[in-house]
Amino acid sequence: MTAKIIDGTAIAERVRAELTGAVAAFTARAGRKPGLGIVLVGERADSQIYVRNKLKTAAEIGIDAKLSAMPATATLAEILSTVGTLNADSATDAILVQSPLPDPLGPGAMQQVFDAIDPSKDVDGVTPINVGRLVQNRAELVPCTPAGIIELLRRTHVQIAGARAVVIGRSEIVGKPVALLLLHRHATVTICHSRTTDLSKITSKADILIAALGRPGFVHRSFVKPGATVIDVGINRVTDALTAKDLLGDTSPRLADFARRGSIVVGDVHREVMKVAGAVTPVPGGVGPMTIAMVLSNTLKAAELRTGGPSIGDRQ
Amino acid sequence: MTAKIIDGTAIAERVRAELTGAVAAFTARAGRKPGLGIVLVGERADSQIYVRNKLKTAAEIGIDAKLSAMPATATLAEILSTVGTLNADSATDAILVQSPLPDPLGPGAMQQVFDAIDPSKDVDGVTPINVGRLVQNRAELVPCTPAGIIELLRRTHVQIAGARAVVIGRSEIVGKPVALLLLHRHATVTICHSRTTDLSKITSKADILIAALGRPGFVHRSFVKPGATVIDVGINRVTDALTAKDLLGDTSPRLADFARRGSIVVGDVHREVMKVAGAVTPVPGGVGPMTIAMVLSNTLKAAELRTGGPSIGDRQ
Repeated sequence: MTAKIIDGTAIAERVRAELTGAVAAFTARAGRKPGLGIVLVGERADSQIYVRNKLKTAAEIGIDAKLSAMPATATLAEILSTVGTLNADSATDAILVQSPLPDPLGPGAMQQVFDAIDPSKDVDGVTPINVGRLVQNRAELVPCTPAGIIELLRRTHVQIAGARAVVIGRSEIVGKPVALLLLHRHATVTICHSRTTDLSKITSKADILIAALGRPGFVHRSFVKPGATVIDVGINRVTDALTAKDLLGDTSPRLADFARRGSIVVGDVHREVMKVAGAVTPVPGGVGPMTIAMVLSNTLKAAELRTGGPSIGDRQ
Repeated sequence: MTAKIIDGTAIAERVRAELTGAVAAFTARAGRKPGLGIVLVGERADSQIYVRNKLKTAAEIGIDAKLSAMPATATLAEILSTVGTLNADSATDAILVQSPLPDPLGPGAMQQVFDAIDPSKDVDGVTPINVGRLVQNRAELVPCTPAGIIELLRRTHVQIAGARAVVIGRSEIVGKPVALLLLHRHATVTICHSRTTDLSKITSKADILIAALGRPGFVHRSFVKPGATVIDVGINRVTDALTAKDLLGDTSPRLADFARRGSIVVGDVHREVMKVAGAVTPVPGGVGPMTIAMVLSNTLKAAELRTGGPSIGDRQ
């Protein structure tokens, strides 16, 4: 038995196709495109790729996406000032600050920048008021990766109500919000993390297993209940050849990519899980494209809410 | 073997004793007492008792607690206006609106009233921004019942880090916030609810079991792992004599109370649980008094934060 692959790329494409008409309708009604402002600080290669993907896909469906690129030497005050400008710009409906910020800004800087975003433009639901509304099951702007996970489950007809869901990882941006979204859809939810004992014993009870801990290939087949749906949120870059071979397997065509580039991106879920799970999201091509699709969906939603037009519906 | 009784009344008394000195210090420094405004709408007997207890214990430790009593016929606009007056009153540091509101106001009224509270005076942490800050593990004002539960566990030296905690109930005011507080203290947390299947199988894995579902005696001994700590958040009024006898046991001295009053208050945990659990909070005399102590503690904290004085420490 081999698990079904949940094709996030194809599902994200359908979501974008659906959005295109709604974006055009907004543009006709408002006399301007929905506007997305992305702030990128520094020159991390991975962040640059993510941001480029967002800009490109946004443009493709008719969203006016603009990049505010700042040097790695930018001060917190300068970043807050950029956010302030976007807050004040009436053509900007949605603001995304790419994380992480450069290390020298310190551990508290990211949240300070998030706190400065106008909640009505908070496309990734990171301001405290939007996080609170998420808990209260009345969020307008739901964090994009968790929203993308729910959309993947919904569009592959995975039963959430009554299911046991286990989330590995308790981050602000994935673990906690996806746990709340699953809870509101009537799953019985367990949140595990680095301090959890007997992890595999708990995860192997899950009908839906969300791996969001950021460790390459960490979730082995012994962690997974036969037939479970496994959502792999990990995006881990592996640069060691032996590790790559171990994680990809001897016969993987992706070994050639590794040989060419010297690195490869893998998820948190080991390939052996394919032999027991019912369905698995691949990395790349699973949750990643859905996150971007949700950025676009939330941008349109913020634009419609700000202009008093019809909303595309609460995705929470 | 019989479980240890966690004496919430005695622990709450110690908390109040500790607060008394800090309240006096605030009063000396600020030239006025910390101020708590309680809004009570309607004439529910149980709400009146809770409010009277809060007013009395607040006065005992030197807090200036004032009641804004409104008739059951009050409109939403009138209640919002009362909250607005308390928001604007510089001597009011903390605002508590007793729930529930009268039914005719409709299901959304409570949250509309909560939303109107100045977050800096939001003593029960019910405004969205404070709920969001709770999720982000940086709340100043943590909801009182969950904070009281953590304080009970802390003062009885129950190990939270690494423990498996199961919460039955997913309310805004108890279930979700206590799950987050336990998670931030490194428990592995599961939230169960009415749609959970195999409930007893899940709860019987818990080292710490929080019963907050509001059904008298629902948690039976088969739900409980031997030696577990069981926190009973239920406050259920039973008026049926047979049910009261079944829940209290044939030999309970509380049967005389029932005979006299025609009703009795019981928790969500069945008395048989005493035979397997390691420790149990009684009802009454467990979580209830701690909730009130946390109202007082949060009132002082809000007063100190508002006047820029020293805080008594983040209880989250």
